[in-house]
Amino acid sequence: MKISARNMLKATVKQVTDGAVNSEVVVELPGGQEIVSIITKTSAHNLGLAQGKTVYAVVKASNVMLAVD
Amino acid sequence: MKISARNMLKATVKQVTDGAVNSEVVVELPGGQEIVSIITKTSAHNLGLAQGKTVYAVVKASNVMLAVD
Amino acid sequence: MKISARNMLKATVKQVTDGAVNSEVVVELPGGQEIVSIITKTSAHNLGLAQGKTVYAVVKASNVMLAVD
Amino acid sequence: MKISARNMLKATVKQVTDGAVNSEVVVELPGGQEIVSIITKTSAHNLGLAQGKTVYAVVKASNVMLAVD
Amino acid sequence: MKISARNMLKATVKQVTDGAVNSEVVVELPGGQEIVSIITKTSAHNLGLAQGKTVYAVVKASNVMLAVD
Amino acid sequence: MKISARNMLKATVKQVTDGAVNSEVVVELPGGQEIVSIITKTSAHNLGLAQGKTVYAVVKASNVMLAVD
Repeated sequence: MKISARNMLKATVKQVTDGAVNSEVVVELPGGQEIVSIITKTSAHNLGLAQGKTVYAVVKASNVMLAVD
Repeated sequence: MKISARNMLKATVKQVTDGAVNSEVVVELPGGQEIVSIITKTSAHNLGLAQGKTVYAVVKASNVMLAVD
Repeated sequence: MKISARNMLKATVKQVTDGAVNSEVVVELPGGQEIVSIITKTSAHNLGLAQGKTVYAVVKASNVMLAVD
Repeated sequence: MKISARNMLKATVKQVTDGAVNSEVVVELPGGQEIVSIITKTSAHNLGLAQGKTVYAVVKASNVMLAVD
Repeated sequence: MKISARNMLKATVKQVTDGAVNSEVVVELPGGQEIVSIITKTSAHNLGLAQGKTVYAVVKASNVMLAVD
Repeated sequence: MKISARNMLKATVKQVTDGAVNSEVVVELPGGQEIVSIITKTSAHNLGLAQGKTVYAVVKASNVMLAVD
């Protein structure tokens, strides 16, 4: 499957915290920087997310803001 | 200013393409990976975005999906 | 690739309208209902979108609102 | 009320799962396909969502991605 | 129609700028503060948006970030 | 820090409701109108959000819909 989302960053799952309907998943980029994702708990389970698993953080370009100091 | 968005990745502007109301901005992470952002042309100009400028790509955690191979 | 987005609707491309940076893509569900998507023009081209092509409309659950009459 | 969101799909509520602040609502399209929505629990209650209720799944076009096999 | 989006701010259209596929619409709150919206040009036309028209700016709660100084 | 998000509304925190991973934060504009935000509980804590605190509600323009009566 090829998706229109322009941003896909390869990362490793570091921590999964489940709520009642959503899960917070912290992943780590190769350079050590963390990315935080909120997805449904059902998706977290469907994807078999657990510490150490290789994943891609996927973000639609229109959801990326830019900031300057 | 400190914002609730959990993801801020330091990057360098590589290319700015202006449309009538939106601009596409390609930025590069230190590891060489690219991030694409769509913001309004007015914002791109207000921030003075141009090739080589240091910026942060900012993404709300609820806008980050995860994928597995 | 398996993605966390909970919604994937199989559809057929009906019309692609390119802007300078974004494209509007109208797709049709099997029941005849239309879905409209705004993606970057680069993505529309990368996916080879053209009238008649089979695609999936993908939506993260947190981007689906509900309304009642 | 008429809203700018381009996508409104008529559906029937199948299941509501409440968390502390969000609810996951599964709705079913006439063709049997399911759509999952995450809204605040307060909204789910304000709209009186319950199994069997007719609703519309509403999605802004810029939140629809496209994928190809 | 009643929608799950928690935020609806009454405002007056101040300016509409059309691109090829999207329009930027600036609206003004009663207190004079401006809100900027990007919607499809088709939606801007369907809603008959023009200077002076009364509208509601509608935002899903999960799309509102918070910042502190 | 200067961000590309076009909408920043000064407000006062009225109520914070924590879930397992997300928090719902209700803020009040100077005119008395409320805005509801869903952010991660970690962000709510990092920003020190509590009743009476001055904050800014930040919304990317592409996440603002418009509606007419």
